[in-house]
Amino acid sequence: MLGVKALAFDVFGTVVDWRGSIIREGTEWAEKKGQRIDWGKFADRWRAGYGPAMDKVRKGTLPWTKLDTLHRTILDELLGEYDINTLSEEEKESWNQVWHRLTPWPDSIPGLTKLKQKYVLATLSNGNVSLLVDMAKHAGLPWDVVLSAELFHHYKPDREIYLGAAELLGCEPSEVMMVAARRADTTGVERFDVVARDLLDLAQKL
Amino acid sequence: MLGVKALAFDVFGTVVDWRGSIIREGTEWAEKKGQRIDWGKFADRWRAGYGPAMDKVRKGTLPWTKLDTLHRTILDELLGEYDINTLSEEEKESWNQVWHRLTPWPDSIPGLTKLKQKYVLATLSNGNVSLLVDMAKHAGLPWDVVLSAELFHHYKPDREIYLGAAELLGCEPSEVMMVAARRADTTGVERFDVVARDLLDLAQKL
Repeated sequence: MLGVKALAFDVFGTVVDWRGSIIREGTEWAEKKGQRIDWGKFADRWRAGYGPAMDKVRKGTLPWTKLDTLHRTILDELLGEYDINTLSEEEKESWNQVWHRLTPWPDSIPGLTKLKQKYVLATLSNGNVSLLVDMAKHAGLPWDVVLSAELFHHYKPDREIYLGAAELLGCEPSEVMMVAARRADTTGVERFDVVARDLLDLAQKL
Repeated sequence: MLGVKALAFDVFGTVVDWRGSIIREGTEWAEKKGQRIDWGKFADRWRAGYGPAMDKVRKGTLPWTKLDTLHRTILDELLGEYDINTLSEEEKESWNQVWHRLTPWPDSIPGLTKLKQKYVLATLSNGNVSLLVDMAKHAGLPWDVVLSAELFHHYKPDREIYLGAAELLGCEPSEVMMVAARRADTTGVERFDVVARDLLDLAQKL
């Protein structure tokens, strides 16, 4: 890994457990209301709406729209389908902000803390800046810098976000290593070769 | 201060002591070489070149150029004037990077740490992103998010940087408070009314 100066992290799925966090908050809400909802399915459908919504932006059908707004559009559709129609505007906004409150995986904070000693740690996420900042503050994620699709008005895997991130980090693209739990997140860039079990294992290997 | 969610900090002068840091590094270098240079004057002249250089970018005479590059151009001129002509390219780059290694004022870290409990802490600096990230890592500055003129391709006091920062923070402009040691840094925005001796005093007052 000679020459790597900065690590750029995918966040949803790689660093935080979006599915578990949504299930937990949903279940707490439903228990109070005496409702029964399959929150795993709800979370999956919310997340599933994200690819097509982003693709509209990537293809130019939709002008630049930040992820909070895409999430909210998908949520509004889902609430309709689940027949949840008693939420105030404030409650809907609070639901939508669940993405700002996602919980890290158990290895995330110790792994990042270790990696931070040697590398610049950046997010490189499709989440908007305020989402990532709130999440980091809530979860204690020790980023050196929050980089987001929002800064480039390009969603991953558009090349512009990877090249733009390297430029802001003052690095050559080859000096930035993408860290993602799923290979699909790195299709826009040169493949990397380190395969690790989790972030602590990655810290060990680097 | 009701409604303030985020604090956006001027950095050079407000959080770090650029003048003292340059004097210290310059003096160390000159002692090894047996040279005598008035480093306070050298620092002042380096800094004085920055306003006119930025103004060229602000007026469009120069296309967007990041601060590292402006600093380097000024440094090259100064080295000529001071008749310092034995530096290798690597040494010149290392001198230029002194801006990435500036030392915080004694109140900066305790003050920021206290303020961070209640507010989102952002830089809002004319320094480029990698300069601010290196500085934070070097000095242990606990920013939640690094915002820079580089993200907007507008230097302070252009309005675009203040409005762009509020947008990225997910805030109304009135929810972001600018913190600057000198009034000149806030001419682009509505004036604020808290006057504090240092950052610990500010934390107390907020």
